[in-house]
Amino acid sequence: MPNTQIQIFDTTLRDGEQVPGCRLNTEEKIEIARELERLGVDVMEVGFPVSSPGDFESVKQISQIITESTVCGLTRAVQNDIEVAAEALEGAKRPRIHTGIGTSDSHVFNKLRTTREKVIERGVDAVKLAKKYVEDVEFYAEDAGRTDNEYLAKVIEAAIKAGATVVNIPDTTGYCLPSEYAEKIKYLKENVKGIDKAIISTHCHNDLGLATANSISGVQNGARQIECTINGIGERAGNASLEEVVMIMRKHHDLNFDTNINTKYLCEVSALVSAKMNMPVQANKAIVGSNAFAHSSGIHQDGVIKSRETYEIIDPEEVGALESSIVLTARSGRAALHYRAQKLGFELSREELDHYYKEFLNLADQQKVIQDQDLINMFTVAATG
Amino acid sequence: MPNTQIQIFDTTLRDGEQVPGCRLNTEEKIEIARELERLGVDVMEVGFPVSSPGDFESVKQISQIITESTVCGLTRAVQNDIEVAAEALEGAKRPRIHTGIGTSDSHVFNKLRTTREKVIERGVDAVKLAKKYVEDVEFYAEDAGRTDNEYLAKVIEAAIKAGATVVNIPDTTGYCLPSEYAEKIKYLKENVKGIDKAIISTHCHNDLGLATANSISGVQNGARQIECTINGIGERAGNASLEEVVMIMRKHHDLNFDTNINTKYLCEVSALVSAKMNMPVQANKAIVGSNAFAHSSGIHQDGVIKSRETYEIIDPEEVGALESSIVLTARSGRAALHYRAQKLGFELSREELDHYYKEFLNLADQQKVIQDQDLINMFTVAATG
Repeated sequence: MPNTQIQIFDTTLRDGEQVPGCRLNTEEKIEIARELERLGVDVMEVGFPVSSPGDFESVKQISQIITESTVCGLTRAVQNDIEVAAEALEGAKRPRIHTGIGTSDSHVFNKLRTTREKVIERGVDAVKLAKKYVEDVEFYAEDAGRTDNEYLAKVIEAAIKAGATVVNIPDTTGYCLPSEYAEKIKYLKENVKGIDKAIISTHCHNDLGLATANSISGVQNGARQIECTINGIGERAGNASLEEVVMIMRKHHDLNFDTNINTKYLCEVSALVSAKMNMPVQANKAIVGSNAFAHSSGIHQDGVIKSRETYEIIDPEEVGALESSIVLTARSGRAALHYRAQKLGFELSREELDHYYKEFLNLADQQKVIQDQDLINMFTVAATG
Repeated sequence: MPNTQIQIFDTTLRDGEQVPGCRLNTEEKIEIARELERLGVDVMEVGFPVSSPGDFESVKQISQIITESTVCGLTRAVQNDIEVAAEALEGAKRPRIHTGIGTSDSHVFNKLRTTREKVIERGVDAVKLAKKYVEDVEFYAEDAGRTDNEYLAKVIEAAIKAGATVVNIPDTTGYCLPSEYAEKIKYLKENVKGIDKAIISTHCHNDLGLATANSISGVQNGARQIECTINGIGERAGNASLEEVVMIMRKHHDLNFDTNINTKYLCEVSALVSAKMNMPVQANKAIVGSNAFAHSSGIHQDGVIKSRETYEIIDPEEVGALESSIVLTARSGRAALHYRAQKLGFELSREELDHYYKEFLNLADQQKVIQDQDLINMFTVAATG
């Protein structure tokens, strides 16, 4: 069976960029957009044009530069938002307007202070207006994660009928369990008339640490686009991480999904986004963290030295990471010490290894990490002493 | 229906501490152990006693101090490991030895270079030896995630027969999908004779960003202990995050699970571990990241100002975080500016708001974040100018 292609919709420059301290100027946005295109994202959402003159300018300039990826601008279901977005996207080869409205009770009654019927009406009007400017219109039902499925199905059906080519089902508050989110997508797939005319999209937030799992459960149940960001940045606890969802589909052949992403650029793009947006990536971040391929315990090091596959499911080169590293600490075993000594040109006998290992442990208990130079000193002093 | 209690097994001081650069001295380990006890963890794994003299000493001293939580030491299925662990745990009120062996083909044939039968034998011998020293013995089947279920069931059955009180099913390489891990736990629950005499434990790694989802799928299918770490630290991409699994069970009442964790200490313990172990937590980390409760986009800010629940599923106080913050950037709307002005003592008319909002946006396009002092200057200069 050939793999089903899943569209990757990157929102690093919109949902990611709206985070405190992450603001980019137009030049920086363009630099990241070019890298995202090289990475192979199908769609990039690059701003919310009505929000500020700077954001408008960024969307406008990126639209003129990017040719391979679809360029998308966010709007509310508000006439002026859509008109301004259309203007910003004018020069784009493949423009998309992303418009929508809140559909959960909390949004309909507390935030918008309106009725369920009015919400559908405003959504439909927004899609129709956007269609006057572009062919490709994505509709979002904000807080779909907490919207009851029956009403949600009505909203989505109306949006598709009005011309939406993509329908986005965001778990805006990051509350859904994978089983619930799966159920929601399945419900829409089975109950919305005309659902096959549109692509269902996931947009999962990570407030409970479930954004990646929820996105995958979405595609397992019929979604064909995943919205995500580099390093999982975004509002509050962020969005699904692009690198995680992509590598899950790449490594789990049984899922029969794949994407257009050139995974070997993942670490490079991660580092660029982290630096430009001033958002450090924690060492233990999956795929792109500095420790993602580092082995420090003796049990693990012994295994990796014998066969990389013992503890690694991804070849670091596949994502553009440096070679898996064996870090020497007081949790390292004899096998790691022997291996590193060899790499440094010292061939130790069994007795020498026993001797140096004790010395090594004492030193490692004092200082956290043992560097190559420490070992060279240790072996050299002994040889000359 | 009363909630089922899920045991929280914290391994911050073992799997977390074995990470490059994370090494702690005994005093620091004791400080964290005391905080973990106050947090309410049921079990704390505090070291791998045979690995170094420093680690032995830490396990020994913590054993003498901690009275509420079970104190656990890791071993391989090796006689000396178990004897040394037993000695380190001597003073503990509730000691547990955690022993085990690799069971996947990769471990059995490539790393251990032995047979499946020999692996069971060594596992059984290890459990029996540990039982001579302590009543509470946990057995791990390393790389259970990639072990075929039929053989795994045989290993687990033998370990329970030998006296294991807890059986740990680690997804050592972080490869499983939630559906696969669920299937594995279910298979053991249904096919291992005597399974109800032991507690099934999850130990999930985060290499694909699925550790939290896998842990929850485990308890949904019969596991009753979750192994996790503060901030999700640990080997490579780390372990399931304690704060995430705990808050999922606390907020999803429909799961009917709960833990003994005093969630109001979560942010405090997170900060302590991060500082002592020199492992910064990324801003968008779920629950404990500095942005976890920060709202910056205009759409979100407007919603939060009207009703916190629009965008927040957790009250920040519940996890000991500071009040949810409204950060002013070029993505903020009029509502946020009006709200902040009020907080600062400036009551703006509709016209004034329109006027200042334009000025605000220009300033925000230049500098990433607008501080209170910037607003005070803006309003004051205008008033006097």
